[in-house]
Amino acid sequence: MALMKALRKTTANPGLELCEVEVPSIRSDQVLVKIEIAAICGTDLHIYNWDKWSSDRVKTPRTIGHEFAGRIVKLGEDVRHLKEGMLVTAEGHFTCGQCYYCRTGQGHICDDVKILGVDVDGIFAEYAAIDAKNIWLLPEDRDPAIGAIHDPLGNAVHSAYAHCLTGQNVVITGCGPIGLFCVALARHAGARKVFASDINEYRLDLARRLGADYVVNSRNGDLTSLVHKVTGIGADILLEMSGSKEALADGLGALRKGAAASLLGIFSDSVSMDLDAVIFNQLTLYGINGRRVFDTWYQMEAALESGLDVSPVITHRFSFEEYEKGMALMNAGNCGKVLLIP
Amino acid sequence: MALMKALRKTTANPGLELCEVEVPSIRSDQVLVKIEIAAICGTDLHIYNWDKWSSDRVKTPRTIGHEFAGRIVKLGEDVRHLKEGMLVTAEGHFTCGQCYYCRTGQGHICDDVKILGVDVDGIFAEYAAIDAKNIWLLPEDRDPAIGAIHDPLGNAVHSAYAHCLTGQNVVITGCGPIGLFCVALARHAGARKVFASDINEYRLDLARRLGADYVVNSRNGDLTSLVHKVTGIGADILLEMSGSKEALADGLGALRKGAAASLLGIFSDSVSMDLDAVIFNQLTLYGINGRRVFDTWYQMEAALESGLDVSPVITHRFSFEEYEKGMALMNAGNCGKVLLIP
Amino acid sequence: MALMKALRKTTANPGLELCEVEVPSIRSDQVLVKIEIAAICGTDLHIYNWDKWSSDRVKTPRTIGHEFAGRIVKLGEDVRHLKEGMLVTAEGHFTCGQCYYCRTGQGHICDDVKILGVDVDGIFAEYAAIDAKNIWLLPEDRDPAIGAIHDPLGNAVHSAYAHCLTGQNVVITGCGPIGLFCVALARHAGARKVFASDINEYRLDLARRLGADYVVNSRNGDLTSLVHKVTGIGADILLEMSGSKEALADGLGALRKGAAASLLGIFSDSVSMDLDAVIFNQLTLYGINGRRVFDTWYQMEAALESGLDVSPVITHRFSFEEYEKGMALMNAGNCGKVLLIP
Amino acid sequence: MALMKALRKTTANPGLELCEVEVPSIRSDQVLVKIEIAAICGTDLHIYNWDKWSSDRVKTPRTIGHEFAGRIVKLGEDVRHLKEGMLVTAEGHFTCGQCYYCRTGQGHICDDVKILGVDVDGIFAEYAAIDAKNIWLLPEDRDPAIGAIHDPLGNAVHSAYAHCLTGQNVVITGCGPIGLFCVALARHAGARKVFASDINEYRLDLARRLGADYVVNSRNGDLTSLVHKVTGIGADILLEMSGSKEALADGLGALRKGAAASLLGIFSDSVSMDLDAVIFNQLTLYGINGRRVFDTWYQMEAALESGLDVSPVITHRFSFEEYEKGMALMNAGNCGKVLLIP
Repeated sequence: MALMKALRKTTANPGLELCEVEVPSIRSDQVLVKIEIAAICGTDLHIYNWDKWSSDRVKTPRTIGHEFAGRIVKLGEDVRHLKEGMLVTAEGHFTCGQCYYCRTGQGHICDDVKILGVDVDGIFAEYAAIDAKNIWLLPEDRDPAIGAIHDPLGNAVHSAYAHCLTGQNVVITGCGPIGLFCVALARHAGARKVFASDINEYRLDLARRLGADYVVNSRNGDLTSLVHKVTGIGADILLEMSGSKEALADGLGALRKGAAASLLGIFSDSVSMDLDAVIFNQLTLYGINGRRVFDTWYQMEAALESGLDVSPVITHRFSFEEYEKGMALMNAGNCGKVLLIP
Repeated sequence: MALMKALRKTTANPGLELCEVEVPSIRSDQVLVKIEIAAICGTDLHIYNWDKWSSDRVKTPRTIGHEFAGRIVKLGEDVRHLKEGMLVTAEGHFTCGQCYYCRTGQGHICDDVKILGVDVDGIFAEYAAIDAKNIWLLPEDRDPAIGAIHDPLGNAVHSAYAHCLTGQNVVITGCGPIGLFCVALARHAGARKVFASDINEYRLDLARRLGADYVVNSRNGDLTSLVHKVTGIGADILLEMSGSKEALADGLGALRKGAAASLLGIFSDSVSMDLDAVIFNQLTLYGINGRRVFDTWYQMEAALESGLDVSPVITHRFSFEEYEKGMALMNAGNCGKVLLIP
Repeated sequence: MALMKALRKTTANPGLELCEVEVPSIRSDQVLVKIEIAAICGTDLHIYNWDKWSSDRVKTPRTIGHEFAGRIVKLGEDVRHLKEGMLVTAEGHFTCGQCYYCRTGQGHICDDVKILGVDVDGIFAEYAAIDAKNIWLLPEDRDPAIGAIHDPLGNAVHSAYAHCLTGQNVVITGCGPIGLFCVALARHAGARKVFASDINEYRLDLARRLGADYVVNSRNGDLTSLVHKVTGIGADILLEMSGSKEALADGLGALRKGAAASLLGIFSDSVSMDLDAVIFNQLTLYGINGRRVFDTWYQMEAALESGLDVSPVITHRFSFEEYEKGMALMNAGNCGKVLLIP
Repeated sequence: MALMKALRKTTANPGLELCEVEVPSIRSDQVLVKIEIAAICGTDLHIYNWDKWSSDRVKTPRTIGHEFAGRIVKLGEDVRHLKEGMLVTAEGHFTCGQCYYCRTGQGHICDDVKILGVDVDGIFAEYAAIDAKNIWLLPEDRDPAIGAIHDPLGNAVHSAYAHCLTGQNVVITGCGPIGLFCVALARHAGARKVFASDINEYRLDLARRLGADYVVNSRNGDLTSLVHKVTGIGADILLEMSGSKEALADGLGALRKGAAASLLGIFSDSVSMDLDAVIFNQLTLYGINGRRVFDTWYQMEAALESGLDVSPVITHRFSFEEYEKGMALMNAGNCGKVLLIP
């Protein structure tokens, strides 16, 4: 029986273990994928750190990870539309197919979802079993490193393209990887001016490289005033990617009347906010969860095919053996997207 | 020179004074309206009570009031499309016509608005001067009492018809006059189930009469549980008309994933809320300000013409001389809409 | 081996044959349904008449029919979420699940669809094998006759509720069953005035019973003039259900500027139309195909649950043995929906 | 009394006359503009050629022209928000302000519109009187030649940005100036692939320069096949700018199911089309009239400010004295936008 490397949560404690385990078997509606590149998501970091959410949700032992590119090496017997050798990534949410949301094209908010690398074994491994219906085909000439970050890029597309950004003044609060993707997406869509804020200079530099017209370090700059000064009226769109209450207040304050905001960053606590300003200013706030399956993926493919360049967001690569370096780096924050190579 | 009765804020103190003043003169682009019926708005009550907002905003002396029906008795010399004798009401926001909002059909959030009965003399008087462009023509067979409540009914239409309510499970938190109008509007639009909550039994009775399928007194009932039990999934739409933090939390909790809320009630303070639930549940929150000018008015006319009956919301009528009874009643809350007759 | 009655196209000629055939076997992802009531669709009539479309598409022998209500009597081994005894109907389009449309919630325009009773054996039979994912559960208290017409009612919902009809002046051209459903749906949604036209008095009478404010026999009446006279400006919405060029011209002529039309009726030939009027009048035309799966079905359920009454549309019932009477009646046109009882 | 040059239709015959007339006086709500650059619209050409439409509509004598940039030299006494010396252009449709359309932000389809250079004297003159509310301020650094083409650029923006073009495969049929603008706008908005067709090689060359990925000469190329071959599924959006029936058929044939089309080109005759394909393919057709006032203008300003370059569309400049050369060139078609300098 074939064995493979896998990064696993083996006990209910912080940390991971690089193990040797059996290559997974596949169901008739699954495919076996050889992982070429994986990427670390904030969710993986939560599980690594073993915070409250993850210790409540994740059962051990569990191979974690859900962002990847790889090639199909084996097909389940009922899989007709895929072939061995195909370069692929996947949507990591396995939906029930039966609930109201699944039956109306809203699988991203399925009532009974299972998540790759959280509820079932994930892709921080040499091989992974993936439901065929979740597979997303990559063009042969796609850099697998880009393929490995489709999942978070999808969150950015979902948040940013909830609005038509063409001609809009866009504010992005939070320049982690998803915020950085939003900067690139806004530029790609013909935004008017793009403003980005964070408290980390490393990330603000990346925002500049990805096309932000103005970056603000919220520790010493005043995003709200800057946006009003530059635009004369306020921004049209806020993309809140930070989960910071201060950033949210800054971002909402930067908006003109009648504007809209996408909220993706998680606050982890109740947020005290000036709802009266939302009301008097006729603002619209969109809560954004995950990616639309597969509407968002098609939008992402269109953007990448027509020249969207998010490669500067990928800042570090480590081998599986060096996984602790990657996790430490992400905990410190001076990075964009961090890849892991099996 | 002709004199008339007017209810005025004459000094910077609580209360009003029933005065005798000159009938106003009109500009070339205005009309003079003989007021038949006026209605008391919450704004009028704020000015009567002389709260912080009104003492900051209103300059004395000022005739207050902006909800009315009356007949045109004189035309400014440039007014071509109106005639003496017409039964009318009016949009009480005088917009600048030059700002971004005015030039894009969003006059309700004009950058330089003047409000009837707040910034200029209002209609708690026998006669009032009104800008011709703000006049809204009423059908000859419209009950003037209904004509006098078009302004708050417009707020309800703006809030409720921000969504297509047909077939939707609708929750309305707050059964003041605007919330009660929302109940009737939801019914009229073919809503599925209509739930209404308040803490006042008098108003909950009115909600029932206007067509609510379920009413909940939040002091002892659990709106959230009831809605989930009845619908099996949660409501599609929340219309938050109360300005109460508890009601907002109840209302948001009653929603299904992917649902939407209109927020009209003013909270007067910062609100601590669970934004993560908004995000995970992919909710959309619409801040609603005033009425669209005149999109909302046409929608209102269509609803009234096709049988919308909001007459049960009108619960009391007083003469101008009895204005203090009306104000006291509204401060106590056991009423729907209160009319004043000159 | 159990046998059953079935109405089949046995040879490539006009007509059908009432046969005795084997009860179908089911795949692991299907259920076996005992048909309680079937309804005749225009498509069935085309196949019966053996017109060009059907002779090109349908392979014999084939059991036809796709509109039904019945009870599940057997479950395929992989079917988990259904139970024997459930009262059901079904979406008759079996979608591929893999194409762009299926993966973005637009299965109604799937690139590789198979149709019940056209491409696979249908439900003019005592039993039918249906894919579990296509089953639509009916409430136990739903009249099976209503259950049997969910498919065409869905076409009406898709056409009519492509627009929010609340407060709108709505014109419906063509009062076959789907047009008649549209009349009822417009009323249910709080439409302002509902106008319906046809050339058949029997159907115009039904339109009146279902709530049309005005009906016009196009042979001798002038729909366009009437609508402009009543509304003063033209209608807001056209629902074109007839497939008649004259009706289309009348309907478009009845619209105000900025209005919208749903087009569902098939014209079977190229249509000469005044596109410049569409352009100058800023009209929007929506081509409508089938039903959204299952968005439309949920809307339909909401409407029926909250009191939509379409029972007057069902005008005739025949036994399977009398099928030729039903077909002849539909060819003649003096009917609404015609049911067949096994 | 000051005199000026003006290009006028002096008799009801083809041609124009370069006249000397009085500088117009202005009303209290108008400004006097010194014209720096004018541009010839297709409408001007129709009036020059004196076709049926113009001979029915235009009363002589009439100074024609409505596309311009110039500077305000005099203010009407009621004009507060403008200043002498400002660089401006204007919306050429003077709306009534009283009709349903004007009161709901849809002035572009006003019931009682007057057009500059058609119904009132226009801007092919050294000076013109323009309603202050129609004036559109240009940034001081805007090339007046670009300022002079805001009107047709607005038609393109209205047509193209009726859709969010980001990531879309876009087909543009007709490469006159407005079609060429659409090419640039699609590129600016992050379109995926841009296809353009015409029958004039000069204009196809311009389309290539403005960013079309593929151009097709419909005399010998097959737009429909090309689009399906390149995209694999069909285009998402059609912008029909030609008014040619063949181009319309090609363009609609190039679309995928569920796609949308803006129709701006005028056909001048009834059009025979395959509406069943529109229905089966669930297409949506938008008739587009003029420009939204001033929503479209703000969108245009945003695009120009953020780098939209439409200067290649301007191909020729003539003095007023050479106006016949400009008209002849436009009748021949080997040109983009043709300017006239007073």
